[in-house]
Amino acid sequence: MRVRAGIVGGAGYTGGEMLRLLINHPSVDIAFVNSKSNAGNLISDVHTDLFGDTDLRFTGELSSDIDVLFLCVGHGDAKKFLAANPVAEGIKIIDLSQDFRLKAAAGEDWVYGLPEMNRERIKNANYIANPGCFATCIQLGLLPLAAKGLLKGEVHVNATTGSTGAGQSLSATSHFSWRNNNLSIYKAFEHQHLNEIGESLIQMNPDFDGVLNFIPQRGDFPRGILASMYVESDLTAEEAQALYEAYYAAHPFTHVSKKNIDLKQVVNTNKALVHVEKHGNKLFVISIIDNLLKGASGQAVQNMNLIFGLEERQGLALKAAGF
Amino acid sequence: MRVRAGIVGGAGYTGGEMLRLLINHPSVDIAFVNSKSNAGNLISDVHTDLFGDTDLRFTGELSSDIDVLFLCVGHGDAKKFLAANPVAEGIKIIDLSQDFRLKAAAGEDWVYGLPEMNRERIKNANYIANPGCFATCIQLGLLPLAAKGLLKGEVHVNATTGSTGAGQSLSATSHFSWRNNNLSIYKAFEHQHLNEIGESLIQMNPDFDGVLNFIPQRGDFPRGILASMYVESDLTAEEAQALYEAYYAAHPFTHVSKKNIDLKQVVNTNKALVHVEKHGNKLFVISIIDNLLKGASGQAVQNMNLIFGLEERQGLALKAAGF
Amino acid sequence: MRVRAGIVGGAGYTGGEMLRLLINHPSVDIAFVNSKSNAGNLISDVHTDLFGDTDLRFTGELSSDIDVLFLCVGHGDAKKFLAANPVAEGIKIIDLSQDFRLKAAAGEDWVYGLPEMNRERIKNANYIANPGCFATCIQLGLLPLAAKGLLKGEVHVNATTGSTGAGQSLSATSHFSWRNNNLSIYKAFEHQHLNEIGESLIQMNPDFDGVLNFIPQRGDFPRGILASMYVESDLTAEEAQALYEAYYAAHPFTHVSKKNIDLKQVVNTNKALVHVEKHGNKLFVISIIDNLLKGASGQAVQNMNLIFGLEERQGLALKAAGF
Amino acid sequence: MRVRAGIVGGAGYTGGEMLRLLINHPSVDIAFVNSKSNAGNLISDVHTDLFGDTDLRFTGELSSDIDVLFLCVGHGDAKKFLAANPVAEGIKIIDLSQDFRLKAAAGEDWVYGLPEMNRERIKNANYIANPGCFATCIQLGLLPLAAKGLLKGEVHVNATTGSTGAGQSLSATSHFSWRNNNLSIYKAFEHQHLNEIGESLIQMNPDFDGVLNFIPQRGDFPRGILASMYVESDLTAEEAQALYEAYYAAHPFTHVSKKNIDLKQVVNTNKALVHVEKHGNKLFVISIIDNLLKGASGQAVQNMNLIFGLEERQGLALKAAGF
Repeated sequence: MRVRAGIVGGAGYTGGEMLRLLINHPSVDIAFVNSKSNAGNLISDVHTDLFGDTDLRFTGELSSDIDVLFLCVGHGDAKKFLAANPVAEGIKIIDLSQDFRLKAAAGEDWVYGLPEMNRERIKNANYIANPGCFATCIQLGLLPLAAKGLLKGEVHVNATTGSTGAGQSLSATSHFSWRNNNLSIYKAFEHQHLNEIGESLIQMNPDFDGVLNFIPQRGDFPRGILASMYVESDLTAEEAQALYEAYYAAHPFTHVSKKNIDLKQVVNTNKALVHVEKHGNKLFVISIIDNLLKGASGQAVQNMNLIFGLEERQGLALKAAGF
Repeated sequence: MRVRAGIVGGAGYTGGEMLRLLINHPSVDIAFVNSKSNAGNLISDVHTDLFGDTDLRFTGELSSDIDVLFLCVGHGDAKKFLAANPVAEGIKIIDLSQDFRLKAAAGEDWVYGLPEMNRERIKNANYIANPGCFATCIQLGLLPLAAKGLLKGEVHVNATTGSTGAGQSLSATSHFSWRNNNLSIYKAFEHQHLNEIGESLIQMNPDFDGVLNFIPQRGDFPRGILASMYVESDLTAEEAQALYEAYYAAHPFTHVSKKNIDLKQVVNTNKALVHVEKHGNKLFVISIIDNLLKGASGQAVQNMNLIFGLEERQGLALKAAGF
Repeated sequence: MRVRAGIVGGAGYTGGEMLRLLINHPSVDIAFVNSKSNAGNLISDVHTDLFGDTDLRFTGELSSDIDVLFLCVGHGDAKKFLAANPVAEGIKIIDLSQDFRLKAAAGEDWVYGLPEMNRERIKNANYIANPGCFATCIQLGLLPLAAKGLLKGEVHVNATTGSTGAGQSLSATSHFSWRNNNLSIYKAFEHQHLNEIGESLIQMNPDFDGVLNFIPQRGDFPRGILASMYVESDLTAEEAQALYEAYYAAHPFTHVSKKNIDLKQVVNTNKALVHVEKHGNKLFVISIIDNLLKGASGQAVQNMNLIFGLEERQGLALKAAGF
Repeated sequence: MRVRAGIVGGAGYTGGEMLRLLINHPSVDIAFVNSKSNAGNLISDVHTDLFGDTDLRFTGELSSDIDVLFLCVGHGDAKKFLAANPVAEGIKIIDLSQDFRLKAAAGEDWVYGLPEMNRERIKNANYIANPGCFATCIQLGLLPLAAKGLLKGEVHVNATTGSTGAGQSLSATSHFSWRNNNLSIYKAFEHQHLNEIGESLIQMNPDFDGVLNFIPQRGDFPRGILASMYVESDLTAEEAQALYEAYYAAHPFTHVSKKNIDLKQVVNTNKALVHVEKHGNKLFVISIIDNLLKGASGQAVQNMNLIFGLEERQGLALKAAGF
C-alpha cells in the first residue's frame, strides 16, 4: 500500500527530520508540507541538506486528500491547530507536541505512541501522541521493570540532551560561543516530561509511588540523549539482563547491550540501546537514543508504519553517523 | 540481480562505513568481512553503532564465491594483498587505497573510479581505483572547467578535512584534547593527492600546465571536507553556473547550488555540492563532500552499482545528519 | 619571599598546567622540570602553547636546592619516586597523584590538600596530597553540609569530566573521532575517588553512613567538571544558601551563586562555583571546577601559597576563557 | 603610575574580554563600564565567568575623570558615540570598531594600533584605531615582507575565524546546532578588512600593487584565527626565517616558530605565532592569534600599555588555555 502524508510545521527541526525520512520512505508520498512562515519557499532553502533531493515547496494550504497528518508544531499549537482546522474522519493524526500525551488533556481517542509499551494499541489507533524525547529515553530504561511491577522507592535519573532538543529558535543557551564545550543543568526535578513518564509507569506498575528524581542536562552536541538511572532492586545482574532482553526481544529498534554503551552508537538512527548493571542493591541502567529520531520524528514514522500495517523498520533502516 | 561482496580490512574506518552501507543495500549480500586483527570478533564489537543490526563476525579467511571484493586496507597494503592473494578472474575489485590510482603504478587494467569523470569506463571496468577524499572533493570543483579546456595558470586550493580522514590509529593530532577547537595545516603544497588530481586534470585538459597550490587543513570535526579553489577565468558568473549545471546534470550525487553552501549539508550522505562565484577575473568554487562516503566508501558502492548495472543511487539514498 | 620549585613529571597534562602557572607566578623560580621521557627537550616543544614564553628545557636530573617539589607523575609512581629518590628534609612536597590521599596509605605526615576543608593544617604541612579532580568538585558541593553534620542517608552524584582528566595517553575513548559529540559513563558506583571523598566526609560528619552513589561521565570537552548532587535535607532553600555562603565566605576561590551556573564560568580559572536549590525534601547542589586547575595544578599552587605564607590567590588570578 | 579606564559598550564580547583583562591589570583602575542595555546590572550577571571576581555594575553614565576610554561598541557606533559625547582633551581613546581604521575616514589624529607596525607612533598617539582581528592576523604574516618591499604579485590568503568574531548577537550561523562540526565560507574576496590590510601594506611597501585574494571561513570553535598565505618570493627558506625573526625580535607577543603551529597554541593569550615555509617559488606563511585578545581587547590593552609607558606585557602575561 501507499500512504499519503501531510506535514504541518515543516520548517522546524522535527519537521525537517520528518522530511529527511519520508522522502526516502518506500511506501510514502508526501502530499503537502505546510508552513505558515515559509509558504512558497523551497524546502531545500530551509532544510539545506535536502538540496538535490527534492524540489518540493512549503505550502500555506492544507489538503484532506491524505491518509496521515503529522503535526510538527510547537507545544500548545497542535491543540490550537486542530481546533481551527478540523481533520476529516479517517485521517490518522500523529502529533509530535506534548498536547495530547496526558490522558486528562487528551481523552480516550489518543494513544501514547511508545511502541515498546503500546504497540498493539498503536496499530489500531486513530490519533497518536508521540512521546517526548527525554520521556522516550527514560521510559525505555524502566519499562521492563515497570511491566513486572518491580519499580519501587525512588528512581534517580540524570539525562543529557543535544541542542536540537531545544528547537531551532535562537537563544542564549543555543549560541555556539556559549554552548561549545559547555555543560549545564536546567529544570532539575521539574522537567515537564516527568508527567508523561509518571503516567506510563503508574499505568504499567500501579503500585509504584512515582517518585522520580530527574536532573536534565544541556550537552554540547546537537543530537542524542544519554540517560542513566538507578533504583533499588532484588534482581541479580543476570536476572535483570534476562528481563530486559526478553522485554525487548520483539522490538526491532531497542536492543540490550551487555557491553557499556556510548551516545554515538545511536546518533542518526531510530535505535535505542539499553545497558544494565547491578551495583550493590542498585540496578543501574543506561539508555541512549537520537532525540530527533527515536525521540521524535523517527518514532512518529515507526508509529505510522504500525498504524498502516507496514513493516515496522520500513524507511527507518538508517545508516548510523558513527562519527 | 544480487551481488555477493567480500570486504578485506573491515575493521578500519572505511571498512566500517562500507558495512554500514552494504548491510542496508537492497541488492548486496555480504559474503565475508576479513580482518586480520579482529578475526572471530563480532563486527558490532568493533563498529559498535552496528549493534542490533548485524550478527556478522570478522573472519580471517577469504572466499572466492563473490562478485566483488572491496579492499579497505591501508595505502601500500592493497598491492601487497593482491600479490599474496590472487583474485579469481571475473571477480571485480574496488580498491579504496591509493595503490592503483596512478596510471604508472596501476597499468591499464585499473579505472580511476570517479563517476563524474569516468562513468562509462567504470561500467565496463574490472578493477576500480577508488579516488582519494581530498582528490574527489577538489576534482568535483574543477572537472567542468577541465572538460572544456578552461583550466589555465595557477589553481589555488584550500581544503579542510575531518578527523576520520586520518583513520582510526591513535596519534597526537587525533587526540580529542588536542584537536577539539583546534585547526592546523599539514603537507602544504605537498599532499600526495596532488598526483591523482593532476593526472585527471591533464587527461581532461591536456594543455593545463598543472600548477595546483594545495593547502590541506585538519579540521575539528569528524566527517567532511570543504574545499575552496579559484582560478583566473574569462567566464561570466552566469556562464560558469551554466557550465557546471550542464556538466553535472546527469550525475545524481553532485549538485550545483546557486546559494552559498556549508559542510553539514552533505555530512552522512554520498552527495557533493558545488557552488560557483565570480570575483573580478577569478572563478571561485566551493566543493563539499563527506570524506567517508563520497570521499571513500560511498563512492565505492556507487562504483559497484555502476559496474553491476544497478541504479546508481541504490543503497545510497542516505538520510543526512543535518545536525 | 621567593620559592624555588622543582617539578617531576613535567611532560604530562598536570605538569604542563603547573608550568603555565609557575612561569607567571610572581614569587616562584622554577629550579628544574624533570621528565624521563623528554630530558633535554625544550619545554615548549612539548607544551607548545609555551613557545615564546620560556626557553627552559626538561632535565633528567634532580636538585635538592629547592623549597618545594611538585610530583606530577601517574598514580602509583609518586610513591615509587619518593622511595627511589629520598627528598631532603625541609623540602615541601605536593603530590598530585592519588598515592597519599588516604590516611591508611599516607600516614600522618601527609595533609589532604583541600583548602576549603584543611586550610590551617595545610599552612603547617610538609607534605600535601593534592585532591583528585572529581573529589574536589564533589566535596565542594557537600562540605558545608558535612561540617554541620547534616549529611545523612544517600547522596546521589552525577559528574561529567573533560577529556584532560584522563591524561594525555592515547586511547580509544580519547580519539577525537570517537569523543567528539559523544557522551558515556564509566566506573558507575565504583570510581576510585569515592574513597577520598568518603574519608573526608566521615572525618567532618562522623555519623554519616557514607553511601554516596556516584555516576561519572566522560564529556566531549577538554576542560572542566560539572557535578550535581542531592540529598534529603530539612534545610529551607534560604537556610541552605546562608549555610553555603557562610562556609565559603573566607575562601577566595569558591563562590556560591544564587543563579544557575554553567561549566564555562570556571574554565581556565582556579575558581569553583556552587549553586544550591531546594526541591521538595531534596537539597540539590551543582558544583563546577576546571579539572586541571582547581582540580589539579591550580589547587597545588594554592596549597603552595598557603604553605609559604603567600597571598592565597597569588599567581592564580587567571583570566577565564569565557568561550 | 595608575591608569583610570572607562569602557563604553561593556556588555559585548570585546567589552567582556576587556573587563577580564583590566580587572587583573596591576596598573589599571576601572572608572566605569557603560552599557546602555545593561545599566544598573551586575557585570557578573552578563559576563558570568566574572562572578566572584568583581562586584562592579554597568552604568548608563559617563565620567571624564579617566585617562583612557575604550570604545567596545559596534561598527559605526563609535563615530556616533564620539559625535554625541565629546571627550575631554587629554583623554586617550582606543576604539575597537572599524570606524577610524582607514585614513580617509579617520584623519591624521588617529593611529592604526598595530604595535608590530606602528609602535613608536602608538606611544605618542592620542587616539588609537585598534585593528580588526582578521587584519591583525594576516598583517602579522606579511609585515616582514612588506617592510622590505618584498611583496609583489598576488597574495593568496585563507583564514578561519572562531564564532566570537561575529559577536554575541544571535543568528542562524551562530546557532550551536548549525555551527557545531560545520565549516563555511563568507564574503570571499570581499571582506571589509581587506581595506585596512591594503592600506597598511601599501604604506609599508608602496609599490605593492595590492592584489590580496582573501577567503574568510567560519570555523566551529569559539576563539582564534588561523590564517595561511603565500606569495611568490626569491627568498630562500633560511632568508625568510631570518627576516621574520629579525622583524619580530623586539616584539614581545609575536614569535616565529620553526615548527609547524596549530591554533590552540595561542588561544586565551595575547600572542601571535608565525611560521614560514618555502615551497618552490612560493613563500608560505601561517599566522595564528586569539581573535578576542591579540585580535581585539588584548591588543587594545597592549596599545594602552604603550601609550602610558607601561611595560608592554603588563596585564597580558596570560595563561594559555592549552586545551
